Amino acid sequence: MKRFAIEFSYDGTNFFGYQGQPNVRTVQGELENALEKIFKQRIYTQAAGRTDAGVHANGQVAAFNCPIDRLTSKDVKNALNANLPRDIYVKTAWEVEKNFNPRFAAKKRIYHYFIYTNERDVFLRNYVWHFKYKLNIEKMRKAAKFLEGEHDFTSFKKGNDRKNPVRTIYRIRILKLKPHIILIRVEGISFLRSMVRNIVGSLVKVGLEQWSPEKIKEVLELRSRQEAAGTAPPHGLYLYKVIF
Amino acid sequence: MKRFAIEFSYDGTNFFGYQGQPNVRTVQGELENALEKIFKQRIYTQAAGRTDAGVHANGQVAAFNCPIDRLTSKDVKNALNANLPRDIYVKTAWEVEKNFNPRFAAKKRIYHYFIYTNERDVFLRNYVWHFKYKLNIEKMRKAAKFLEGEHDFTSFKKGNDRKNPVRTIYRIRILKLKPHIILIRVEGISFLRSMVRNIVGSLVKVGLEQWSPEKIKEVLELRSRQEAAGTAPPHGLYLYKVIF
Repeated sequence: MKRFAIEFSYDGTNFFGYQGQPNVRTVQGELENALEKIFKQRIYTQAAGRTDAGVHANGQVAAFNCPIDRLTSKDVKNALNANLPRDIYVKTAWEVEKNFNPRFAAKKRIYHYFIYTNERDVFLRNYVWHFKYKLNIEKMRKAAKFLEGEHDFTSFKKGNDRKNPVRTIYRIRILKLKPHIILIRVEGISFLRSMVRNIVGSLVKVGLEQWSPEKIKEVLELRSRQEAAGTAPPHGLYLYKVIF
Repeated sequence: MKRFAIEFSYDGTNFFGYQGQPNVRTVQGELENALEKIFKQRIYTQAAGRTDAGVHANGQVAAFNCPIDRLTSKDVKNALNANLPRDIYVKTAWEVEKNFNPRFAAKKRIYHYFIYTNERDVFLRNYVWHFKYKLNIEKMRKAAKFLEGEHDFTSFKKGNDRKNPVRTIYRIRILKLKPHIILIRVEGISFLRSMVRNIVGSLVKVGLEQWSPEKIKEVLELRSRQEAAGTAPPHGLYLYKVIF
């Protein structure tokens, strides 16, 4: 039996998150519904990462076994796109090893977070964090440096997450894309739940000059969720790319 | 009693068009609901143009009488934005003459239509006409020239529109904004219902090289809706600006 991986994008606005759950619309649920329409049987999928409600993806990756041997990766891509709703799109499909699990095979995950600092724009309301105050990007960059490397990220995890809190962030880049659009790009192996959004929430405190850049180091070292700032909203976040 | 005009944007995706109608969500309905919340009475509004379901606006204009004399234009803008849903946003408000009616006062209306010719993009699905074939822009520009000036636009009107079909188009510009985004900008005094979308539908026939540019002239002169191509979908269209 062949096994395929797919790289796909979705607009998280109308999903109750990635992970399949009964009675709500999820990305995994819609993906497995499309596979069921194609193969006339339930197909189990494994994904590289779970995204929360409202969070988007440019390049999520999932893998599944294909019960029809003659299908090529192009067939898989086309069949899925013909059966998926318009807010999910498969960009590419490729054949993988029998035991390929994108969750464990991923070597790097890249998240993008967009902040928009201009007057409200109705067309961006679901796609950026609208934030009308000016941010000091130089200070945010300085603060972000303290988060790079291997650390205990307890201060930036979701309260009820009991996983090992030690994670490695390879790099955080903060770019001004247009006069009013700031992109925070976070690269790491794997992340705790809400970790990127919690980091963004605290970096914004620095950008507003309510916190010094060094305060981020202090918060990190205190290993307590209460010390960090609030969580940035989900609709500014994108799972941009997974690298294997 | 003061009278105000407002310039506002809306994302047409979740509206059943501009014009107020019972039991459906319309832009005018939401605007008048917001005014009712502010003034505790029903306020009647007049707008520069009606847009169909799914059509967006960057710069729609409406006017209404204000029952509270001390309010400034800034107060009006802020009160409306605090009471409108997130898919409508008032950009500016200004005081106008007692008899100002944006529908009749408008000297120019500018519409933008976006066509996207790349692989599907989930984030653009409600904001551009996704069309995966290559278009010959030079030929579309040549065809558009035949539509400029004063003409009987019967061939490009909605079937049941009984208004005077003679209209003036000042200019049609066709721009390649990015490798895969084409903008068709149409400027005129006023337009028949579906006229811009019908023009776009026929220009695309030329871009596909199914029609010669001269065929547009022929279609125009035949004054028959059956001669023109199908209507382009609403979600690529924006009421960009109204000039007084």
